[in-house]
Amino acid sequence: MSFKKSQLHFSNSLPKVDFKNQILVYDQILSNKYSSWIKKFPRRYSVSSGENLKDLKHFSSHLDTILKISEGIPKDTMQIVVFGGGSVGDFGGFVASILKRGVGLIHIPSTWLSAIDSSHGGKTALNCAQFKNQIGTFYPADKVYLVKSVLSALPSERVFEALGEVYKIGLISGGGLWKNISQIKVWDERQLWKLLPSLVQAKLKIVNKDPYEKKGLRHVLNLGHTVGHVLESASGLPHGYAVLLGTLFALNWGKKRGITQPRLTLPLDQWILSNELAEINNPGVYLSQDKKISAHSQIRYIFVKSPGKIVVTKVKISELVTEWKRQALRV
Amino acid sequence: MSFKKSQLHFSNSLPKVDFKNQILVYDQILSNKYSSWIKKFPRRYSVSSGENLKDLKHFSSHLDTILKISEGIPKDTMQIVVFGGGSVGDFGGFVASILKRGVGLIHIPSTWLSAIDSSHGGKTALNCAQFKNQIGTFYPADKVYLVKSVLSALPSERVFEALGEVYKIGLISGGGLWKNISQIKVWDERQLWKLLPSLVQAKLKIVNKDPYEKKGLRHVLNLGHTVGHVLESASGLPHGYAVLLGTLFALNWGKKRGITQPRLTLPLDQWILSNELAEINNPGVYLSQDKKISAHSQIRYIFVKSPGKIVVTKVKISELVTEWKRQALRV
Repeated sequence: MSFKKSQLHFSNSLPKVDFKNQILVYDQILSNKYSSWIKKFPRRYSVSSGENLKDLKHFSSHLDTILKISEGIPKDTMQIVVFGGGSVGDFGGFVASILKRGVGLIHIPSTWLSAIDSSHGGKTALNCAQFKNQIGTFYPADKVYLVKSVLSALPSERVFEALGEVYKIGLISGGGLWKNISQIKVWDERQLWKLLPSLVQAKLKIVNKDPYEKKGLRHVLNLGHTVGHVLESASGLPHGYAVLLGTLFALNWGKKRGITQPRLTLPLDQWILSNELAEINNPGVYLSQDKKISAHSQIRYIFVKSPGKIVVTKVKISELVTEWKRQALRV
Repeated sequence: MSFKKSQLHFSNSLPKVDFKNQILVYDQILSNKYSSWIKKFPRRYSVSSGENLKDLKHFSSHLDTILKISEGIPKDTMQIVVFGGGSVGDFGGFVASILKRGVGLIHIPSTWLSAIDSSHGGKTALNCAQFKNQIGTFYPADKVYLVKSVLSALPSERVFEALGEVYKIGLISGGGLWKNISQIKVWDERQLWKLLPSLVQAKLKIVNKDPYEKKGLRHVLNLGHTVGHVLESASGLPHGYAVLLGTLFALNWGKKRGITQPRLTLPLDQWILSNELAEINNPGVYLSQDKKISAHSQIRYIFVKSPGKIVVTKVKISELVTEWKRQALRV
């Protein structure tokens, strides 16, 4: 099946509201700050962001309310407008993809992470019991609005939390994008906003080669995510920060194996990574949601040769655990 | 987006089992009769057919078990094999469409209705609260097996219950198919099996013109369904029988309005339809699941001009209710 390409809109302020046809699904944390815009939607549904929102157990009750809210809008013109970060986007995108077998979808990411990464590429996701993101659809938004006033108003910590995905996509793409990224010493929202179009295009270039993940070409986007997800689940680190640490882990391991250019590095002190790794006694148990997978099983792992040159390979879980311990001790 | 075409297999017996990659989702009513084939699947999940199966409220618990059953099968080779009638197909197809963002799907319809109609065309569906089929996906099966030994073993009542969709698709297609259908005086399983390939092709011809229902070309397939659904919900008539009555209703109304050829009819006594219509005091309340729709609102209605010539139009709910009363009285 061919893949719909989302229209990208870079704008200074929030888009015009189509109050007749749109249902706003938004993070309640945005209620105060954007109340006058939010109130323009007579049909709106506020949610609390986070993994709990993505739990399939609560989905029926969410849908029940959203269906009631949607009454009277013709299916053909109905649009879900999602205003929030990653989890709200995963949830709202999934809702749009299955409501009346698919209605219009507009993403307005409210975090740098979602603006750079999760609102592009068409993946929606819910969790079922202990299985994270095991349910979902490929459903690219019709439009993604990247709104300067919303993103620039975010606190500076959010910029730092986005850097994992920034360095990740930079290393994957290489070339001019990596050059630009690696020259930045102090990151702020202006730097991120300036780079945003090229970061998004770099991700979409990979997505469009393999939108339904049939050819394995999207696997490179998991750089930093294997170790990152463990740190996220086990220590509750923010996703982007965990990915930054996971990417540094991949560079270190790659150097040890002679895969990665010796001089390639990230602006992050090794001891921070080592400390975080040392916190987790048994990383192996987090490395697979599939209980039938043993320490001898192999999982996919992404190494970097040099910026723009990525190696997708398999490693044994036991090898990864050994390397984890080695990097944890290198304080 | 382009639409995947299902491979059709007409066979005498149930297909070979790929016990490594397949998960069987089957109607428990088939357990005894097909136990030796069913037991070939080490991974299987039995369900009770009916609207309760399609209730989103229970979906999380179904998925939790199915995910556990699926552990160890690589996503790329995983297939859901659905063995059952309409509701099991709607449920199993939806599961396949959202499990790991879409896995393989094989339909083996176990009723004539699903063999003729619901297993083709890619619609999956669940219900949410009072909203029927308001959740779902377009997800055509990779393969549909039409198995003579399974279908021919069905009791003869099931043949009769299928006739609604048979006459419906015959009237929509016209030509040779209608000629063949209208010449059959006594229906039995051999007649249905012989006609099955052309019935399926006739449906797919319409589906393929507008697979995602974007152009309105699939609307013709709702012939007989507006009144049919009311009889189904209000009196619990089997779907196919209700559609047969609904199609006769459409012919009668079309003749009254001068749309339908005066001689066009179905082999069904008018008094049966009149009796069923008279049972329902307030058909208007069933005519929309959307509470904001009033008696003055218009709904889509499908008339037949002549076999092969269909008129899609809008009628007021109040007009339909008036016609309902007229046909109910014509005992």
